[in-house]
Amino acid sequence: MTGSLDIIEFTPTAQQYVFTFGGAPPIRRITPGSVLRLWSDDAFCSALRSVTDLSREKVDLRYVNPQTGPFYVEGAEPGDTLALHLISLEPARDWGASASIPFFGGLTSTDRTATLQDPLPDMTWIYHLDTVRRTVQFQAQHSELSVELPLEPMLGTVGVAPAGGEVRSSLVPDRFGGNMDTPQLRAGVTCFLGVNVEGALFSIGDGHYRQGEGESCGTAVEGAMTSTVIVELIKGGAPAWPRLEDDEHWLTVGSSRPLEDAWRIGQVEMVTWLTELYGLHKMDAYQLLSQISEVPLANVVDANYSVVTKARKSLLPAAVAFAGMHDELRARAVQVLRG
Amino acid sequence: MTGSLDIIEFTPTAQQYVFTFGGAPPIRRITPGSVLRLWSDDAFCSALRSVTDLSREKVDLRYVNPQTGPFYVEGAEPGDTLALHLISLEPARDWGASASIPFFGGLTSTDRTATLQDPLPDMTWIYHLDTVRRTVQFQAQHSELSVELPLEPMLGTVGVAPAGGEVRSSLVPDRFGGNMDTPQLRAGVTCFLGVNVEGALFSIGDGHYRQGEGESCGTAVEGAMTSTVIVELIKGGAPAWPRLEDDEHWLTVGSSRPLEDAWRIGQVEMVTWLTELYGLHKMDAYQLLSQISEVPLANVVDANYSVVTKARKSLLPAAVAFAGMHDELRARAVQVLRG
Amino acid sequence: MTGSLDIIEFTPTAQQYVFTFGGAPPIRRITPGSVLRLWSDDAFCSALRSVTDLSREKVDLRYVNPQTGPFYVEGAEPGDTLALHLISLEPARDWGASASIPFFGGLTSTDRTATLQDPLPDMTWIYHLDTVRRTVQFQAQHSELSVELPLEPMLGTVGVAPAGGEVRSSLVPDRFGGNMDTPQLRAGVTCFLGVNVEGALFSIGDGHYRQGEGESCGTAVEGAMTSTVIVELIKGGAPAWPRLEDDEHWLTVGSSRPLEDAWRIGQVEMVTWLTELYGLHKMDAYQLLSQISEVPLANVVDANYSVVTKARKSLLPAAVAFAGMHDELRARAVQVLRG
Amino acid sequence: MTGSLDIIEFTPTAQQYVFTFGGAPPIRRITPGSVLRLWSDDAFCSALRSVTDLSREKVDLRYVNPQTGPFYVEGAEPGDTLALHLISLEPARDWGASASIPFFGGLTSTDRTATLQDPLPDMTWIYHLDTVRRTVQFQAQHSELSVELPLEPMLGTVGVAPAGGEVRSSLVPDRFGGNMDTPQLRAGVTCFLGVNVEGALFSIGDGHYRQGEGESCGTAVEGAMTSTVIVELIKGGAPAWPRLEDDEHWLTVGSSRPLEDAWRIGQVEMVTWLTELYGLHKMDAYQLLSQISEVPLANVVDANYSVVTKARKSLLPAAVAFAGMHDELRARAVQVLRG
Repeated sequence: MTGSLDIIEFTPTAQQYVFTFGGAPPIRRITPGSVLRLWSDDAFCSALRSVTDLSREKVDLRYVNPQTGPFYVEGAEPGDTLALHLISLEPARDWGASASIPFFGGLTSTDRTATLQDPLPDMTWIYHLDTVRRTVQFQAQHSELSVELPLEPMLGTVGVAPAGGEVRSSLVPDRFGGNMDTPQLRAGVTCFLGVNVEGALFSIGDGHYRQGEGESCGTAVEGAMTSTVIVELIKGGAPAWPRLEDDEHWLTVGSSRPLEDAWRIGQVEMVTWLTELYGLHKMDAYQLLSQISEVPLANVVDANYSVVTKARKSLLPAAVAFAGMHDELRARAVQVLRG
Repeated sequence: MTGSLDIIEFTPTAQQYVFTFGGAPPIRRITPGSVLRLWSDDAFCSALRSVTDLSREKVDLRYVNPQTGPFYVEGAEPGDTLALHLISLEPARDWGASASIPFFGGLTSTDRTATLQDPLPDMTWIYHLDTVRRTVQFQAQHSELSVELPLEPMLGTVGVAPAGGEVRSSLVPDRFGGNMDTPQLRAGVTCFLGVNVEGALFSIGDGHYRQGEGESCGTAVEGAMTSTVIVELIKGGAPAWPRLEDDEHWLTVGSSRPLEDAWRIGQVEMVTWLTELYGLHKMDAYQLLSQISEVPLANVVDANYSVVTKARKSLLPAAVAFAGMHDELRARAVQVLRG
Repeated sequence: MTGSLDIIEFTPTAQQYVFTFGGAPPIRRITPGSVLRLWSDDAFCSALRSVTDLSREKVDLRYVNPQTGPFYVEGAEPGDTLALHLISLEPARDWGASASIPFFGGLTSTDRTATLQDPLPDMTWIYHLDTVRRTVQFQAQHSELSVELPLEPMLGTVGVAPAGGEVRSSLVPDRFGGNMDTPQLRAGVTCFLGVNVEGALFSIGDGHYRQGEGESCGTAVEGAMTSTVIVELIKGGAPAWPRLEDDEHWLTVGSSRPLEDAWRIGQVEMVTWLTELYGLHKMDAYQLLSQISEVPLANVVDANYSVVTKARKSLLPAAVAFAGMHDELRARAVQVLRG
Repeated sequence: MTGSLDIIEFTPTAQQYVFTFGGAPPIRRITPGSVLRLWSDDAFCSALRSVTDLSREKVDLRYVNPQTGPFYVEGAEPGDTLALHLISLEPARDWGASASIPFFGGLTSTDRTATLQDPLPDMTWIYHLDTVRRTVQFQAQHSELSVELPLEPMLGTVGVAPAGGEVRSSLVPDRFGGNMDTPQLRAGVTCFLGVNVEGALFSIGDGHYRQGEGESCGTAVEGAMTSTVIVELIKGGAPAWPRLEDDEHWLTVGSSRPLEDAWRIGQVEMVTWLTELYGLHKMDAYQLLSQISEVPLANVVDANYSVVTKARKSLLPAAVAFAGMHDELRARAVQVLRG
C-alpha cells in the first residue's frame, strides 16, 4: 500500500459519463496509494452556458451529476474503508452555471413535497470566474446588482457502489456517500467510506465553484473541475456512514428525510466515533457532543437531505482516527503539490 | 426614543419566575432606549447542583426555562418591531449543569417521536467555570476524560407575547422568538421581534455558558446569567419571523417541525430581507442566498426545532436594516460598557 | 355523579366566541352528568356565504373555529378524565362553506412549509344541504360537475384547557384535543380527555357537514352545528392523549409534526391502552396492533397534523375501558333522544 | 393483446430469488394478457419458523422480500402502463410469521430515526392458519391471550424496474411500486404502474396473510403466497405514481419521507386523476377530494413510507379509467376462476 507520486490523469468522454453509484463497470483499475487527477463535467453536462439556456429544454434530471469513474480499487473488499484525500480542486473553466429548475430545490414544491401550485420561473445564472482574484461573479437578472464572491471549490458527489446490489442515481446521497453536497468536501479533507463491493467502485463529480449551506435553490455554482485525489485503502473498519477528517475537524455526514433524521444519523455516527477515539461511554460522548457540535447543513434539496456534524479538534485531546491516515495523506499531498 | 445610560437592574424572586410567553402580567414598564441588567436563573431553576441531582426527581418539564420578565415597553403596539441588543452576557455562577432527561433530547425517542423503547439513563453533568481562563470543564462520568471548553455565553430564550391570544411554554420557539436555543444569541447581537400585543411583553432567560449547534441532548451548559440589554422600539416594520443582526451577519431564525420546515421558514424570511435590503427580485435573492447561506442548526430538541440562516455582510454590498438600528445600538453599548 | 335529562341549551353571541383552548373564563358551570345542546358557528364565523366571499377579504386565520364554551365542570381536577359523549350532531343551517385559503391547506405551501411560489387561487365553494336526502351538494366552479354527497356531520374541535398555563389557538390539535379534525368525532362516540386545570374548561366547535380524511384543502364543508352532548367526569385515569370509543372501535388520536410523529403518538397510546385492557405485555400489544390497526388520517393541514389509530372491537375479546363509561353514556343517550 | 386463459405457473427456486427492483435479468418472457400463477416465499425466506427463530440470527435485512420475477412483458416500452390484476391470493402454507426486528419498525428507533437507546427485544410470533375458518391465530408470548383474526391476504410488493438505471431493494416503495405494504393490494384490485424499461420487468412478493394499516412493527403476518395475476399492457398513459382500481374505489399510492410527503404525492396524483376522469379544473378536483378522501396509511416502516388515497366510486358519477381495463380484467378473472 505504498503510494506512487505518478499521477494518473483521466478525463471521461461524454459517452463515459456515469449517472449512478453502482451499476456501471469500472473505467480503470487502480492500486491503493494512487494519485488521480480527474476532470469532471458540471452537473448539467455543460448544457447551461448562458442565461437563455433553460433547464426545461436542456436538462433531464435523470441524467445530471455525471460521474468520473467508477474506479476499481485493487484489494478493496466489503467491510473495508476507502480513504479519498482531496489534494486540490481546480475549476476547469472560467464560468459556472446555476439554475432554478421547475419543481426542484428547497424553496419550491417538488415531486416529493408535492403541491398544486405553479412552479417558480425557470432561470439560469452564469457566474464568471476571475482566476486572479479567485472569485465568481453573481449578476442579478432583474436588477443591476452584481456581487463578487470568493471561489470556494468543492465536490458535490463522492461515493462508492451501494450495498445489497442497489444502484442509485448520482442525485442521491446515502450511506455510500454520493450527492452529499456539502461545502466541507473541499481540498484538504479526507473522506472515509465503507466499501460495499469488491473494488469499492468509487466515482466523483458535481464540482461546485462555491455553494451555500443547504444549496437552497437546488444548484450551486456548478462547474467542470479538475480534482487531484489520493486513494487509499484501510482493511476493515468500515464506518456505517461517511466520515470526514480535515486538519481542524472530525466530521460525519447523515443523509435521509426528514431533515431531523439526517441530523440524527450524523450525530449518532459522531457519538460512536467519539467513543472510539476517546474510550468514552456513549452517554458521556452524547453530553460532550451536545456542547461542541458544529452543524452546518449540507443540502435540503436532494433525494435525501444531508447534514454535517463537526467536532473541532482544538477543543479535544489529541486523538488518532483510522491509524493516522489523514495526517499521512496530508504529508503525501504536500509532496504531490510540490511535484 | 432617546436612550438612558441609567441601568435598570432586576433579579426576580423564585415566585416571580414566569414559564410562558404571554399570559403573565408585566413585571416592569420600561421606556424604549432603556438599558436593563437582568439576572436569570438556569433552565432547571437551580435544581440540578450535583451529578446526583437527577431530572426525574427534580425537574418538571412544564416549569423549566424560568423567564425574567415580562417587560412592558411603553408605546409598543402590534405591528411594531422590538429591538433587543445584547450588550453582555455574564455567567452569574461558577458552575453550570447539563442533563440527559428521560425521553427528552435529540438522540432519544420523546413524547413526540414516541417509541416503545426504554429511556436513556437519567444523568446530570456539572461544569465548573474558570473565570480567569473563561472556560467550563466537562468531566466524563464513566471514564476519566476531562475537557476544558471555552466559555461562550448565550441566551436560549428571548421572546415576546405571541399573537392571537396564545400563551406558549418557555420551552417553545416560534414566530415570537422564545426558546430558539441558538448560539447566535450572544453578546453583540441585536434581535428584532415583531410586536403582537400592547407593550410587547418581552422576557429573556435560559442562559447557556456554551452550547453546541443542535443542542443534541436537549440541554446546554445551563447557568444563571446576568444579561445587559438595550431595549429599543421601531414603529412598524414587524418581521414575520425573528431577525438578528451582528457586525458580521444578517440572520433569520425559523422554528417548526419537521426540521426542513424550520429551515424553509428562515430561508424565505432571508430571501424577503435580501429583497428589501438590495431591491432584489425574489428569484435573484433566492439564487444569491443559495450561494452564500451559512446555516448552523440551532436546536433539534424543542417543541419546535430551530434553524438559523446567516448572510455574511462582507460578501455583500453595504446595506442598512431597520434604519441602522444595530449600528446605533452597538455604539450605545460601547458607552454602557465604559460605564 | 348522576346525570340529569334536563338539557342545558346554549348559543353564544358573536361576542362570546372564543378562539383559544385555555385563556378564557368559563361561560357556564355545569355538573357531571349534564346534557348540553350547543350551537356553534361555522369555522369562518359565517363570513363565507357565497362563492364570491373570499377568504383574503373575510377571514382572519387568527380568529377561526369559534368555540362554544368553555364550560367549567364541577369537581374536575388535573389528572381526572373528562368524558364527552356526542349524542347527536345536527346541521343548524341548510348550507355549508369550504374554501381554498391562500397558503393554507395540504397541497400548497404554507407559512410553515414555506416556498417562494405564488399561492393557489382564493376560492370559496358553497354546499347546499338537502335535509330530506341528508346530502350536501358539491358544485364545480370551472365546469358543470355537480355531486351529491352524504351528510356526515362531525366536530372538528373538541378540547380542554392545556397544561402548564398554555393557551392555544382553536386551529391547533394537541394532547388537550382541540382541532383534531377527524371524521371519527361523530354522533355515537365518546371522547376521553385528560383534565389539566380545575373545571377542565372544555369547548366544542368547528362543525363539519362532511370531511374527507386528511382535510386536504384545509377546510371541510364547514357549517353551523347543533351538538347534543353528555358530559361526564371520571376521577383520575387521565390518558396522555385523546382516546375515543364508539360501539365498534377503540380509538386514539396523535397530533404533531411531522406526520409520522402524530402516528407514533397515537400508536404508542393505543399500545398502552391495549396493555391496560388485556393485561398484555407491550411487545405483544405492539405485535397485535401491527396486524389489526386501522389508521385513517385526520388532518394534514393544521398547526399540528392528526392521525387516528383504531382497534376494532369485533376482532378482540370483550373488554371494558373507563369502567364502562361509553356503554353507560350510550344508554343515557337513548333516553335523551327519546326525549 | 388478447389474453390467454392458459395459466403460466412459476415457483422460483431459492437461487432464483431476487431482492431488487431492476438489476436482475428476466426469469420469463410473457405476452400481454397472460395469466400467471406465482408462488412467492415469505419476507424472511422461510427463516422464521418458530418463536425461537430470532431475526438477529436468521434475517439479513439486505435480503428480505424475495421477489418472484422479474417478468419481461413483450412490447412494454418506457411510457407505457402495466396493468396487473390480482385475481386471487392464496396462502401457500398453514402458518405465517411476524417479528420485532431490532431497530426496524415504526415504534422503535431505526437506522434512519437513529437514537442512542437500546433496541426493543428481538421476538418472533408464529400465526397458525385455520383454512376452514380462514383465520390466523395471534398468540401472546408474555400472557395467555390468543386472538383469532380473519385471513385477509395481500401482497406487500408489486413493482417494475425503476427509471434512470436505478436498482432498488425490495424493501423500498417508490414511483415504481415496490414495497408499498398496503392492505389494498388484495384480490380484486388492478394495479397500474408506469413502465420505465423495455419489458417492464415486474415482480411480486412479500405475501401477507393480514396486515394492519401502517404495519407498525415492520412486519405483517408474513407468509408464502400463491398469487394468480393477469398481466396487461396499455400503450402510453403511464401514471407518475402507482394507481389502483377496485370495484369500489380509485386509489393512488404515494411513497416518500416524511409521511406528509407520501400523502401529498398520492393526493396530487389523485387530483390529477380526477381532472382526467371528470374534466375537472384542478381546484375543483382539490375541493372535491378534500370532502371525499379516504386515507388509510399503508406503512410507516419502510425505506419510504406509503400512504393510500382512495376515492369511492359510489360517491361520484360513473367514469372510466385506462379505457375500462379494470372492468375487463374483472370479467376475465371470473373466467379464470371458473377454470
